[in-house]
Amino acid sequence: MRLISVLVCSLFVSATLPAIAADEKVDLNLVNKIRDEGTNRSKIMETLSVLTDEIGPRLTGSPGLRKAGDWTKSQLTEWGLQNAQVVSIAPFGRSWVLEKSSMRMVAPSNLVLDAIPKAWTPGTDGLKRGKVMYAKLETEDDLAKWKGKLKGVILLRDAMTPTKLHTTGDAKRYTEQELQEMESLDLGGATGRPPMDMAEIAKRLAFAKKINPYLTEEGVIATINVSRGDDGTIFVQGGGSYKKDEPTGPAALVMSTEQYNRIFRLLEKKKDVEAEVEVAVNFGDEDPANSINVFAEIPGTDKKDEIVMLGGHLDSWHAGTGATDNAAGVAVAMEAVRLLKAINFKPRRTIRIALWGGEEQGLLGSRDFINKNVASRPEVNDPKEKDLPSFMRRPTGPLSFKPMHGKISAYYNLDNGGGKIRGIYAENNAAAKVIFDAWLAPFHDLGAKTSTLRKTGSTDHVSFDAVGVPGFQFIQEPMDYFTRTHHSNMDVYDKLQKADMMQAAMIMANFVAHTANRDELMPRKPLPPEPARPAAASR
Amino acid sequence: MRLISVLVCSLFVSATLPAIAADEKVDLNLVNKIRDEGTNRSKIMETLSVLTDEIGPRLTGSPGLRKAGDWTKSQLTEWGLQNAQVVSIAPFGRSWVLEKSSMRMVAPSNLVLDAIPKAWTPGTDGLKRGKVMYAKLETEDDLAKWKGKLKGVILLRDAMTPTKLHTTGDAKRYTEQELQEMESLDLGGATGRPPMDMAEIAKRLAFAKKINPYLTEEGVIATINVSRGDDGTIFVQGGGSYKKDEPTGPAALVMSTEQYNRIFRLLEKKKDVEAEVEVAVNFGDEDPANSINVFAEIPGTDKKDEIVMLGGHLDSWHAGTGATDNAAGVAVAMEAVRLLKAINFKPRRTIRIALWGGEEQGLLGSRDFINKNVASRPEVNDPKEKDLPSFMRRPTGPLSFKPMHGKISAYYNLDNGGGKIRGIYAENNAAAKVIFDAWLAPFHDLGAKTSTLRKTGSTDHVSFDAVGVPGFQFIQEPMDYFTRTHHSNMDVYDKLQKADMMQAAMIMANFVAHTANRDELMPRKPLPPEPARPAAASR
Repeated sequence: MRLISVLVCSLFVSATLPAIAADEKVDLNLVNKIRDEGTNRSKIMETLSVLTDEIGPRLTGSPGLRKAGDWTKSQLTEWGLQNAQVVSIAPFGRSWVLEKSSMRMVAPSNLVLDAIPKAWTPGTDGLKRGKVMYAKLETEDDLAKWKGKLKGVILLRDAMTPTKLHTTGDAKRYTEQELQEMESLDLGGATGRPPMDMAEIAKRLAFAKKINPYLTEEGVIATINVSRGDDGTIFVQGGGSYKKDEPTGPAALVMSTEQYNRIFRLLEKKKDVEAEVEVAVNFGDEDPANSINVFAEIPGTDKKDEIVMLGGHLDSWHAGTGATDNAAGVAVAMEAVRLLKAINFKPRRTIRIALWGGEEQGLLGSRDFINKNVASRPEVNDPKEKDLPSFMRRPTGPLSFKPMHGKISAYYNLDNGGGKIRGIYAENNAAAKVIFDAWLAPFHDLGAKTSTLRKTGSTDHVSFDAVGVPGFQFIQEPMDYFTRTHHSNMDVYDKLQKADMMQAAMIMANFVAHTANRDELMPRKPLPPEPARPAAASR
Repeated sequence: MRLISVLVCSLFVSATLPAIAADEKVDLNLVNKIRDEGTNRSKIMETLSVLTDEIGPRLTGSPGLRKAGDWTKSQLTEWGLQNAQVVSIAPFGRSWVLEKSSMRMVAPSNLVLDAIPKAWTPGTDGLKRGKVMYAKLETEDDLAKWKGKLKGVILLRDAMTPTKLHTTGDAKRYTEQELQEMESLDLGGATGRPPMDMAEIAKRLAFAKKINPYLTEEGVIATINVSRGDDGTIFVQGGGSYKKDEPTGPAALVMSTEQYNRIFRLLEKKKDVEAEVEVAVNFGDEDPANSINVFAEIPGTDKKDEIVMLGGHLDSWHAGTGATDNAAGVAVAMEAVRLLKAINFKPRRTIRIALWGGEEQGLLGSRDFINKNVASRPEVNDPKEKDLPSFMRRPTGPLSFKPMHGKISAYYNLDNGGGKIRGIYAENNAAAKVIFDAWLAPFHDLGAKTSTLRKTGSTDHVSFDAVGVPGFQFIQEPMDYFTRTHHSNMDVYDKLQKADMMQAAMIMANFVAHTANRDELMPRKPLPPEPARPAAASR
């Protein structure tokens, strides 16, 4: 029943909304020029190859990110953008570069192991050999139980992870029905996840902080987690700590699921398993040079003090080359402004591209930009609050707005992989949705026709939305983003689809150009009331 | 049109054949006992875990195969089989064990590389660093062109291999329609592949023999091929040579497709790429101990001089643990005879399980058994002929038959991965097909109901079929055999499906038991006329 009413509703919307939105001017000549340049003279795959094949991974705080910052600044300048600059978002913490890593099982039989060190974990100080053991370390009792028994051990930290047959494709594109469902909004429905148990989270965080010192003190050689991937795909993020004053613990690697499971089964059979591991990394302290955002502009004309922004995040994880996460977003935004320069587009408002650092560590780059230029709250001084992840902190006071807050018309973000754009999340901004529908019309033939009031999170438009500046993220094809590439060793150039990337750049250029040239700023939605959170003492 | 007539035909066959085949006695009490033991007290996953997790890869001529031979002999004996023996199939050649292998790109940036040495290729004699280059070496002109330019080089041997989005599942099961189509036989259709151009093949083989000495003489550090896999799956077989008198060339590895492509693109951009590689292997000369077949028997009663055989091949490639290729076949055959012993089945004919070595090098184990015991042709003495692969050699003379030729009722083989049995290839033996249909009837509910006169090749039943002894291979679900596991680093225990393996063992037990107890030997098809091949001089 619900499904049918949704379909009817969607059909109705499709048939009537374009008429309602007809007041929104669409510059069809501009569309034609963007599509011509973007289709026939695209440079997006060259940009992507430099970012991934040449520069490689771009971990925040590390030389790869700095290299990417310098190159993107220089490339944007070469394309005719102005005021290109690399801006530090320090203090961030340590830089980290993986020099080498190899591991093998040496008993009961010989096996070269596929395991990737987590970012910000230390090396092994040469080749180390040790007994492989499994220990569950989830409570204080566990720590007490294993005390004194882990010296010289290579420690498995997870239970076995069964794999599944891949009977459906790892990569998919949205069906028409899925897109139609995405457009519907259920006002009476659940309004998000149930509230988090903050006390439980705080307890877990406090326990987690004990683990690294414990492992170091116990003399563990290295810890091994199992990857959530299979078939050779290894998902790996950070461990240790990028914060200068926090302990890193011993070397920590993530192993291919099938090999991890084999070792786990051998241990279950009471076989003595031994392994050799050698990891070499370079920790550094290059703040502020390697913790950066990049900006560049196409200056506006009659409304040049107002700004339209677009971007993606330049930083990445380290196991692949950060191709879908998020060289794709960076290259699409770069190609979008290149297209606009190539067709000699003269925007009324200033167009500013932003390539963020520190996204993977909590939207650090975009938050830094917002705090310094758009809107901020008083600094966090309470040491207890500082220890918490930002989403758990109490507001330190009300937002205070800087002049730029009223000048940014909108920010457009792309950070959901290597697939083409199917539409846009209007983030509950019903007025913007109507405008977006008009702008999408000339791109229906390229598969982009959906706008939804639904919100999406976990990337840099959230920093804008949080302070009341319209920030949007596009709807992208899922492809194999969550099954293969997101934070894995398979996040590489070969996973990018040329036609998809070309399409995305044209649509982003179109949205940005129309936002720059419309008479008014993009409509805003009211800021929510300041959150009333319980005082720290009561938690 | 064709499709429709096939469907009609298949429906007709399904509806009527059981009646035609009703003369074939099916011992339904036996079926019930097999299904009870096979369903409720299966040991197949334990067998599989020993073969894969514990023993690991079982490369022909190497200690892993010997270990597997000793264990299977002992396990079969423990289950009550008699005359268990490990029989050498020497001369084979060298043993080879991979000790360690690691590789990384060190310029223009740092990257730990996933590359697996090919079997029977040498180590690097310590850590070596070299310039990475690509050279096409396909003609004498190519060899001349690169002479003197490859010293100290790590040499890419393949062009770039584009990857594809996995929009359909890697693993599949046969649809009813596919199985129905498999049953139909087109007498007017093509009778196989077009004849091979023997002269061209001989030319290529002769050129291929020059490559290894050339690479060694030129001082190449290592060669790298691209894997045909993706997402971290690396397909790798042999290189160098297992023959004692043949040159191995330098170290030779197969690299993950995405990393290979990245390096290839860097070279296309004229970047200087350097890499480090370290491979350590153990070549040995343990013939005859490590080149083996394994046999064991359930002795027959009133027809004990006649034999029913079943098996799979015990040898494997080295990158995984040979789980689907072919621990699966071995474990299914072992479980089949275990089931028959457990239910105290007394066969009229002797049941002999055969676990072959050397299958991956050209059905060496089963051919050795056939030559020594069943039927053979005069030895090859012409050195030119000896140099050719066996499928290209002229017959040295007519087959001479040994007494066992008339005593083997049938041989049943399983070697198409880890999926369950959907039926059987009757290998153009129309009489056998009718019998098989009767035996399959009690297993329709488990998905096994297809028999086809079509032939299938590339595994050990071919050695029997070639000399006129009924040899059959079962139809198995494709699963992800050719997409992920076949000769790859992903041929591991986790890829095996328990329910599928249990089903296969029950069906194999059923076929073997009924073959053992029917009144007559299985019907044979006429041997084809001796092939008339042109004399060597005229080629």
